[in-house]
Amino acid sequence: MQERIAVAFDLGGTNIKAGLLTSKGRLLAGHLERTEGARGPDTVIERLASLVKKLATQAGVSHRSLVGCGIGLPGPLDAKRTKLFSAINLPGWKNVPLASRLERKLKIPCFMENDANLAAVGEAWQGAGRRANSFCLYTLGTGIGGGVIIDRELWSGASGAAGELGHMTLEMNGRLCGCGQKGCLEAYASATAMVRRCKERLKQGARSPLESETGMTAKKIFDAAKGGDALAREIVSEVTLYLGAAIANVVHALHPDLILLSGGMAQAGAILFEPIRREVRRRVFPVFVKKLRILPAKFGDDAGVYGAAAWAFRNIQS
Amino acid sequence: MQERIAVAFDLGGTNIKAGLLTSKGRLLAGHLERTEGARGPDTVIERLASLVKKLATQAGVSHRSLVGCGIGLPGPLDAKRTKLFSAINLPGWKNVPLASRLERKLKIPCFMENDANLAAVGEAWQGAGRRANSFCLYTLGTGIGGGVIIDRELWSGASGAAGELGHMTLEMNGRLCGCGQKGCLEAYASATAMVRRCKERLKQGARSPLESETGMTAKKIFDAAKGGDALAREIVSEVTLYLGAAIANVVHALHPDLILLSGGMAQAGAILFEPIRREVRRRVFPVFVKKLRILPAKFGDDAGVYGAAAWAFRNIQS
Repeated sequence: MQERIAVAFDLGGTNIKAGLLTSKGRLLAGHLERTEGARGPDTVIERLASLVKKLATQAGVSHRSLVGCGIGLPGPLDAKRTKLFSAINLPGWKNVPLASRLERKLKIPCFMENDANLAAVGEAWQGAGRRANSFCLYTLGTGIGGGVIIDRELWSGASGAAGELGHMTLEMNGRLCGCGQKGCLEAYASATAMVRRCKERLKQGARSPLESETGMTAKKIFDAAKGGDALAREIVSEVTLYLGAAIANVVHALHPDLILLSGGMAQAGAILFEPIRREVRRRVFPVFVKKLRILPAKFGDDAGVYGAAAWAFRNIQS
Repeated sequence: MQERIAVAFDLGGTNIKAGLLTSKGRLLAGHLERTEGARGPDTVIERLASLVKKLATQAGVSHRSLVGCGIGLPGPLDAKRTKLFSAINLPGWKNVPLASRLERKLKIPCFMENDANLAAVGEAWQGAGRRANSFCLYTLGTGIGGGVIIDRELWSGASGAAGELGHMTLEMNGRLCGCGQKGCLEAYASATAMVRRCKERLKQGARSPLESETGMTAKKIFDAAKGGDALAREIVSEVTLYLGAAIANVVHALHPDLILLSGGMAQAGAILFEPIRREVRRRVFPVFVKKLRILPAKFGDDAGVYGAAAWAFRNIQS
């Protein structure tokens, strides 16, 4: 029997990642290009359709062998997953029924889902979460998103918005977050927050080789911390305290098997993970940490593509 | 066909509540007596067994019509629900296999579960949560416990400890909680915290008719706030801010249909619920509040008994 193949799109504010994957998780073909979302949904839909042809040719498979398509999107969707309400990074996209419009082009069933949710779905399918019954995944990047897996299924809640793990209040009168609230995890522990905090401390007179950096990034701060720089260590230490507290909150409420960290920051390695593990262990009741693991996600930047493929297979089956 | 009947025990630090309930949620007989837990598990197990006889006589049913027994306990259990690890309010109870020991006496299947979890199970069965697919319940009392219902089932997590909603950090360097951590919800919004805070403010020189109260309680503070007392209003306002933030955190992560508040404090009515609803609405993204309801639990002090009966029926069935 021929293996089934799904089309997977991860539609980000900056890039479209696309792939063809088998139901066993083998990537047959992949492609990355600029989203140019500002040119509007029509143009992007056209391009997605022609990308499918390109990928099929690249992989040497016929269109007939494609059983479905999953699409990850950077914004909230309606409860039935028929519309992207809006996305900060796709200006002008309002209530776009992307899946049904693409379905008419491709003549295969298309399914959309929030991209952070799909990162969790991808890890549950073939990644670091494949043996866990329940886990929470944090995407650490410009912002902090999340996905919650319960009994091996994505938990999206009453009308689809569960998993906003970045907007957990950790300080009632804390730093202002991009969402308009105070004291959210995202305001302390996203890559953006790290960079902002570093610049703030430099302005306050902190001394560090980071001063001479143009184009500061979270990666540069982690690298400086690994090299022993005091300011960078201070910032990493603060980030891990907040991530530890936020994870402890989720663990007390949900008691998952596993916490996964994905996104660029999760590449930092032990300098990020070790203090987070210590802080979680310090904060939660002993019963919670017996089996709890806190690990990097497997797919890194490709999590969205794996998740989109998994989502297609999952929804075709049901 | 005769209706099935379950025995239900809610074993608290102070009182044992017992009942016989039908599978349709009808209470046939009920009883309350002091736990006297310090006399040890053996004595309590003997008394539970004789309570069953007393209740059966009271209800006019034969022992043969009892299909099972549920037991709510005030402490953490092992993952398989065979042992009560310990309970702060039952000194000397360590690793007690209460269900199996009671089973040998009663000759019917017995099932144990954490009491706050059972309060949620009871509300899901016949209470304010019976139409909700997912909800979180807070027990507001001496401490703050919780229970999480997902897809109409109790979610107890990787090894059974999920639902510790009282130990969510809301201030990284906040008030010391009984659990040893800083800034937990319980340290701000339990009945104990309300009373402590009121005494603290009086010591600081705040003026209020509450000064003359001996035996201060959360209820007295709520009553004074209803009467317009400024200090009482200040305390209630603080409690509702913290509860609102904690609920918003859980809503961002899980997006449930419903939040239920149970325990003595939940009797306070609109003076508690209205500001909590406002604060949650202010804190979460609009998509979360569209359908979200925040309501008092139905069974009040009897939630544990209803939950224990529901738990017996649930486990016999499966």
